[in-house]
Amino acid sequence: MAETTNTPVTVLGLGAMGQALAATLLKGGHPTTVWNRTPGKDTDLGAAGAVSTPSVAEAVQAGGPIIVVLFDHASVHTTLDPVVDELSGRQVINLTSTAPNEARELATWAAEHGIDYLDGGIMAIPPMIGQPGASILYSGSEAIFNEHRTALELLAAAEYFGDDAGRASTYDFALLANMYAMFGGFMHGAAMMRSVGVSASAFAERAAAWVTAMAQMFPAYGELIDSGDYTQPIQSLAFHKAALDAINRASRDAGVATDFVAPIKNLIDRQIADGNGALEFARTIEELI
Amino acid sequence: MAETTNTPVTVLGLGAMGQALAATLLKGGHPTTVWNRTPGKDTDLGAAGAVSTPSVAEAVQAGGPIIVVLFDHASVHTTLDPVVDELSGRQVINLTSTAPNEARELATWAAEHGIDYLDGGIMAIPPMIGQPGASILYSGSEAIFNEHRTALELLAAAEYFGDDAGRASTYDFALLANMYAMFGGFMHGAAMMRSVGVSASAFAERAAAWVTAMAQMFPAYGELIDSGDYTQPIQSLAFHKAALDAINRASRDAGVATDFVAPIKNLIDRQIADGNGALEFARTIEELI
Repeated sequence: MAETTNTPVTVLGLGAMGQALAATLLKGGHPTTVWNRTPGKDTDLGAAGAVSTPSVAEAVQAGGPIIVVLFDHASVHTTLDPVVDELSGRQVINLTSTAPNEARELATWAAEHGIDYLDGGIMAIPPMIGQPGASILYSGSEAIFNEHRTALELLAAAEYFGDDAGRASTYDFALLANMYAMFGGFMHGAAMMRSVGVSASAFAERAAAWVTAMAQMFPAYGELIDSGDYTQPIQSLAFHKAALDAINRASRDAGVATDFVAPIKNLIDRQIADGNGALEFARTIEELI
Repeated sequence: MAETTNTPVTVLGLGAMGQALAATLLKGGHPTTVWNRTPGKDTDLGAAGAVSTPSVAEAVQAGGPIIVVLFDHASVHTTLDPVVDELSGRQVINLTSTAPNEARELATWAAEHGIDYLDGGIMAIPPMIGQPGASILYSGSEAIFNEHRTALELLAAAEYFGDDAGRASTYDFALLANMYAMFGGFMHGAAMMRSVGVSASAFAERAAAWVTAMAQMFPAYGELIDSGDYTQPIQSLAFHKAALDAINRASRDAGVATDFVAPIKNLIDRQIADGNGALEFARTIEELI
């Protein structure tokens, strides 16, 4: 390995995401030590200069921050609990997908053992790591974020959201929820178009442009929601009910199950039944909380 | 009104959308006759030069194509049935939101009465009419579309999808379904962020950028769906199940109802229960048809 003054980094977990992170750190000149629960995931990384260790205890001896990117919250404990004594005084950056309260539990656990803890939510799929468009949202230890910001920026645009370790995760899952709902809507639309012989690829191009244009409504909805005043509608719940009823009929005509439009239709119907039909559509958020 | 060689146009229905369409046609130099079921919606249009008539029968005597933009399919019949004899030999462009089979029914009804019928789906909200970004999808009479294309392009980018009158409507509702599901996801995400004190406006900006980036996945999903081969996943159903389970936990932590993420979670769970966990996420479409 070439001599370098860059901070050494340990990456625990070599799924597709862990491999992408480790490869990007190596490329950026960081001495990188890797470990995975099951063997065989380190071949490409080894060829690129990574040091592969058979045990977590050895992996964390490399010094520098320890990036954890495992399957879930439980696997973080399974992996770190046995080496908790070695981790005292060290820095852990957990990029495993963990729910906010799981991130907070890990932050508390870390604090109890003298470990500095930064939680991160990766807003990218593995091939995007190190590329424009990827971002990672962080919260928890500001000291870790500031000290290693340059290295973190190698991986993805890095943003810090304060010392509540669960806050980045909340952002992460809020955005993912938005994305999954949108993907569901795409599946619904593509299924409808299949009924008239239009390919999913042809629909995809148009749908991507359409949802991109319609996402420009978010800031207007955001302002309305923050104001809490739904009496000056952009378009009323009653207007949207008519559209949703027609979508339901169109879906039935096309033989497409309405799983992905039923929730918004149901929430609108409920508000109208409660006498709120003349209010703004964005009021829908109040039914969720 | 200034003399003009532009085709006269009649607009039936002066809701927000009808008013926007009539105003744009007037601005484009088309003598425009307007009618609305209830009075008082024609003030601004009258000032801009529109001829307002108290009855549908008078409105359609202006000659030229008759643009219909009413509340729903039933109101199209309520409005046009009484003047069906006057409509014989005329051109009707129906921009009312109608489900595909409703558009087909209207096309059949029109053909039986010697009326040429073009159906359109408006992919815009009223303020977008006449502006870049708005589009209207048409199907049905190609003769109407070709003859009046210049006038139609004044309103919004115009595209013709063939002689099945229900096809444009299918596209319309497929795109709207995608949009509504995305809006539902936005509400879910904004509700989660409220739990950690982040404003909906702050979330909106980030969410718009995020879903815009993620919509770039649609073409890849489209290709996979068209291939029918889900054995080479971008990310497997099992991977997405882990993410959806975490979103569910994160939503519970935030006190947010899971209406908008439950459908995609349920469809993924069902596929995994059926032994398809290793297959590509886009296979979800097959559960809808």
